[in-house]
Amino acid sequence: VSVFDHKVGTASKGEYKHFMLKETFEQPTVIKQCLEGRISATKVLDQAFGVKAADILDQVEAVQIIACGTSYHSGMVTKYWIEKYAGIPCQVEVASEFRYRHTVIAKNTLLITISQSGETADTLAALRKAKEQGLLASMTVCNVPGSSLVRESDLCLMTNAGPEIGVASTKAFTTQLTALLLLTVALAKRNGMSEAAETEIVTALHQLPGLVEKALALDPVIEKISQLFADKHHSLFLGRGPMYPIAQEGALKLKEISYIHAEAYPAGELKHGPLALVDEDMPIIAVAPKNDLLEKLVSNLEEVKARGGELFVFADESVNLYDLDDQHLVSLPTVPCCLEPIVYIIPLQLLSYHVAVLKGTDVDQPRNLAKSVTVE
Amino acid sequence: VSVFDHKVGTASKGEYKHFMLKETFEQPTVIKQCLEGRISATKVLDQAFGVKAADILDQVEAVQIIACGTSYHSGMVTKYWIEKYAGIPCQVEVASEFRYRHTVIAKNTLLITISQSGETADTLAALRKAKEQGLLASMTVCNVPGSSLVRESDLCLMTNAGPEIGVASTKAFTTQLTALLLLTVALAKRNGMSEAAETEIVTALHQLPGLVEKALALDPVIEKISQLFADKHHSLFLGRGPMYPIAQEGALKLKEISYIHAEAYPAGELKHGPLALVDEDMPIIAVAPKNDLLEKLVSNLEEVKARGGELFVFADESVNLYDLDDQHLVSLPTVPCCLEPIVYIIPLQLLSYHVAVLKGTDVDQPRNLAKSVTVE
Repeated sequence: VSVFDHKVGTASKGEYKHFMLKETFEQPTVIKQCLEGRISATKVLDQAFGVKAADILDQVEAVQIIACGTSYHSGMVTKYWIEKYAGIPCQVEVASEFRYRHTVIAKNTLLITISQSGETADTLAALRKAKEQGLLASMTVCNVPGSSLVRESDLCLMTNAGPEIGVASTKAFTTQLTALLLLTVALAKRNGMSEAAETEIVTALHQLPGLVEKALALDPVIEKISQLFADKHHSLFLGRGPMYPIAQEGALKLKEISYIHAEAYPAGELKHGPLALVDEDMPIIAVAPKNDLLEKLVSNLEEVKARGGELFVFADESVNLYDLDDQHLVSLPTVPCCLEPIVYIIPLQLLSYHVAVLKGTDVDQPRNLAKSVTVE
Repeated sequence: VSVFDHKVGTASKGEYKHFMLKETFEQPTVIKQCLEGRISATKVLDQAFGVKAADILDQVEAVQIIACGTSYHSGMVTKYWIEKYAGIPCQVEVASEFRYRHTVIAKNTLLITISQSGETADTLAALRKAKEQGLLASMTVCNVPGSSLVRESDLCLMTNAGPEIGVASTKAFTTQLTALLLLTVALAKRNGMSEAAETEIVTALHQLPGLVEKALALDPVIEKISQLFADKHHSLFLGRGPMYPIAQEGALKLKEISYIHAEAYPAGELKHGPLALVDEDMPIIAVAPKNDLLEKLVSNLEEVKARGGELFVFADESVNLYDLDDQHLVSLPTVPCCLEPIVYIIPLQLLSYHVAVLKGTDVDQPRNLAKSVTVE
């Protein structure tokens, strides 16, 4: 078997100070690569998923996603997408839990593993266990051709992000999401999604690299804001709906490379405990695109503000958050609803990067962590 | 309608300094109350769930649990139980997320809401939404007779814990778990659980009040350990399997009343990020009963130790954790597997209590929090 060898020494950082920054800025390009040959002007092409896929996708009645770390957050976003657009029940579970408990697999389940390396030990073990239980088929969303997950899965959906060297995943995450949105549409078409709805999402996908570019242009603003985090020890990330996993991923980035204890909550859970933690030492980061949940989120944020919390809100530029205008607001371009998770993670990646640089940590190889967790 | 009015003024703390401590020590008694009339020497009685229940339980093909805060953690434990013992797929979701997204409800779903007060706004709204989508039936696990959730559910399983005044839930949680274990057995019997297996669990349940009593006897040990937390700002709680939600509940308790930023992780996820946070300022709390996952957990803990983390391990007295013997070990009695979550939360409740007392916070009415979250 051929194995990709992505050693730090063999890749070049080019003009960038760190691989993580380079990989963050590569995202418009690699998202384009990930879409290449998989969509027409208005449709998701069946060939996107390989020759055996059409037959399998026709029969899917349930989806089970298994992953770890950042890839688990891709899975969480996908659950929201698949249940919304395809109306198919979708479960997501951390691989180390799934593999060791008594799980129930529904009839005609497509099991999806997500892993940048394709070698994540717990994910691979969970796949093997699930196959023994009986599946319709398995699919892996993966960045490394020829990896174990690719070899052992019935279908594979490559993310085509190119080698990722920084331990904190960036472009692997956004290409996973891009690929999984294509899969969502493929499943949704088989479950009543209209041509118009498909066209709307595909049209949005064509705009995605440009929207990510615009989000990346916020870099100087975010670098400035990062100075307010350098002396902090905590933070709370809030989101609702598919932005909750984005809050989780933003918190994980800050943990991994800045060593700040960041934790994410679905904003509606604030009152059930974490609000007790809020004071002037606990900055709160919120991702607030313009959607049905915005009003609810803003009401959660007002409570945080009333209790002395310092707010950092990443919000749609067309929204007037007048009650929060004494707080730190960062405006993002208006984004089609289905793309919000992919675009809003960008500023959070940049934030964790700049905080880490200010703190002087080893950005590309943070303490205690390895790029691929190939042992338990 | 009659409404229970549990004002602080109307109840008495008796010999205890705080309601929370009183309620923590009431647990053996209220668990007995919760079991009263619901089990024989060897069986779970069908009458435990009301006259309409038997017919409904016969038809259950899927379970969806909805709750917030501490009750959500009861639901998480129950997912492990139901899938293990009954082999029925079980999903759990935070109410504020469930109510606002496009959810898919499986055929013949029993929807279970869990709430101490029966008035939690998001949970009630989620129940109403799910009923519109179509359910086999709804059941609430609740502590307040006549509450909205009781009135609007087809079945109700009262926890019989008596009034709970402390904002940080203790006896409501353990009685929820006790009631939900009974329900698990009722579902499992209909799906192939043997009489012997039922008898084993029921026999264990008869021992439960005594085991909780033994865990409470650790109070002086835990009070001493709590001094090591009083100047800490962070902590990480680890568990695997059904002990992961117990780690979550332990972390929530410490957050709510001690204002320490405590976060829980399934121990297998450590290497995917949170390990970067581990240093001498980040105490790690682990719940380690004697089961199949112990070896895996201990290997996770050794990594934490190797990276300078200070460990506090609550473990079975019959287990020799020689590699961790320079760390803080608290021994618990050996507990039948199905009762581990109920017994192991006790020392974590006591820990958060004593840390809060040392920090001088308002234990029964922590800042920013209300007992029942009856608004969004």
